Amino acid sequence: MRPLHAFQSTRRLLFAAALVLASQAHAESDPLPSWNDGPVKQAISGFVQATTTQGSPQFVPEAERIATFDQDGTLWVSHPIYSQVMYCLDRVPAVVKAKPKLAKIEPFKTVMSGNREAIAKLSMDDLLKIVTATLTGMSVKEFQTEVKAWLATAKDPRWKKPYTELTYQPMQEVLKYLRDNGYKTYIVTGGGQDFVRVYSEATYGISPEQVVGSALGTKYGYDKSGKPFLTKEPKLLLNDNNAGKPESIHLMIGRRPVAAFGNSTGDRQMLEYTKAGDGARLSMLVLHDDAKREYAYGPAQGLPATKVGAFTQALYDEAKKQGWMVISMKNDWKQIFEFESK
Amino acid sequence: MRPLHAFQSTRRLLFAAALVLASQAHAESDPLPSWNDGPVKQAISGFVQATTTQGSPQFVPEAERIATFDQDGTLWVSHPIYSQVMYCLDRVPAVVKAKPKLAKIEPFKTVMSGNREAIAKLSMDDLLKIVTATLTGMSVKEFQTEVKAWLATAKDPRWKKPYTELTYQPMQEVLKYLRDNGYKTYIVTGGGQDFVRVYSEATYGISPEQVVGSALGTKYGYDKSGKPFLTKEPKLLLNDNNAGKPESIHLMIGRRPVAAFGNSTGDRQMLEYTKAGDGARLSMLVLHDDAKREYAYGPAQGLPATKVGAFTQALYDEAKKQGWMVISMKNDWKQIFEFESK
Repeated sequence: MRPLHAFQSTRRLLFAAALVLASQAHAESDPLPSWNDGPVKQAISGFVQATTTQGSPQFVPEAERIATFDQDGTLWVSHPIYSQVMYCLDRVPAVVKAKPKLAKIEPFKTVMSGNREAIAKLSMDDLLKIVTATLTGMSVKEFQTEVKAWLATAKDPRWKKPYTELTYQPMQEVLKYLRDNGYKTYIVTGGGQDFVRVYSEATYGISPEQVVGSALGTKYGYDKSGKPFLTKEPKLLLNDNNAGKPESIHLMIGRRPVAAFGNSTGDRQMLEYTKAGDGARLSMLVLHDDAKREYAYGPAQGLPATKVGAFTQALYDEAKKQGWMVISMKNDWKQIFEFESK
Repeated sequence: MRPLHAFQSTRRLLFAAALVLASQAHAESDPLPSWNDGPVKQAISGFVQATTTQGSPQFVPEAERIATFDQDGTLWVSHPIYSQVMYCLDRVPAVVKAKPKLAKIEPFKTVMSGNREAIAKLSMDDLLKIVTATLTGMSVKEFQTEVKAWLATAKDPRWKKPYTELTYQPMQEVLKYLRDNGYKTYIVTGGGQDFVRVYSEATYGISPEQVVGSALGTKYGYDKSGKPFLTKEPKLLLNDNNAGKPESIHLMIGRRPVAAFGNSTGDRQMLEYTKAGDGARLSMLVLHDDAKREYAYGPAQGLPATKVGAFTQALYDEAKKQGWMVISMKNDWKQIFEFESK
């Protein structure tokens, strides 16, 4: 009996060693290191395991693993002003230089004055005029070149960093974690599709074809040498907010997402639509409740919500009712930006 | 010197053996076995090698490898009538059953009569009424269920086969060959996006999100139990023909294709747009010149072209001028359908 006993002991020892190694490997490879342990982190891990483990009752075939993410306020900072609005305002001098008459016409006159208070008071109608003047009338290629040049120099006034560095590290980890488990990650933003596509690959690892956003029409035509090109037209084709989100998801992806992340009333229908599908579903809202490390806004936080896309009390109540999880930046996120010292 | 000499001989022998093996492996793994050798087959292979071989001056990074394919007449039979038009006509009895008043109204009366000659003479306006009645007003899910049921039973009158078996084997090989070399393959069809998405994955290995087509809008709403769903609306959002093809490619993909395949005037702008990009580009047209194995149509072939999407003499001339290659079904394709005996 001795030899067998010795063998069993060795086997037990090896098994214990394997367990230790496995647990170390697990600790080393935590896919969500910027998240504090808690129900939200557990929900994300649990969802991924349930939907990607062969034989799990909630298993989702790889082809159907679609996860959608709002951008502004969900993947990067959008307070107090959306980066794309900053882009449009910053482009006004170039537009006025090309058409000097505009300098005397509102809202361009106000923007050119540099008076921040007056600019902050511009109406939605004024903003629309600025958007039209700065985002249309040029070729798609010219637009892309202009956005690239702006992103290379523009900085957020608070952090003095390029906007593309103000993405949330915990959400970057969720994107990568999902992709590593066979999910296709999409941005579904109320912002401009053409704008976000310029930096989505470098910033989020999301290719242009996986960016769904508000979109202006384009017009096919020819330059003097007969070479075809597309011009950005002042015609709103897709308004990717509210009900527009599931409608655009159907148009651009053609499948219902299994997971969706948002942060505002503009994301409500996307989260609702995602959650209404069969099987395991994950709908999550980012709550901006960290006045120190980022911002605290929305009715419960004292600071006014941004004009568009507020996280209202009604949305919070809806989340509780529908079983969406609320991510507290303050409590769930160990680290917010990649550039922070850990 | 003897040992070295012997070693060199052995090495030479091994090298020769490796060459033989490699050439056999190459012969066995010809990715385009249904193509006859010739300039078209060579152009496809040459293009793939030039754009995917590291260090090649025409190398295209994997992220940018986008290839777009028209469907009707390019990937499957579309003569004498588009399958989706057949679907709409076949759906008319169910629509009339649900709304009996339609039985006395044109064009439904003619369709219900079963008079093929009269049906063939329906105007585009009549067809539009039929399309609207059969493709809108139901939920996206109901529509998908109906299309699936139709595909399972409907058969092409000439081959007595389901429509999804009437895909061109040589084009299936091109799709796979491109994908095996890191290309993303898209369908860019004038046909309905929602229609093609139902079978694209099973039929072509192309996932729904890589199908771009003409698209009707959808409307987000709720059923009686409060569950959200999308209804197909009688509102044309994207007309994916002619200039609409590059415009939709920009909207849905956001990159210019490196390769494009079509067969009709409706594909001209897509081929032109693809070819106008920098570096290696492949634009190809399928010419239906095989009256025996498929059809011969277009002005040069005697049979009248289909109403929409003709391969005209002007298109042929344009192809020659622009350096697009013309695929002759008769000469370039060894086999047309998978079900043919080889």
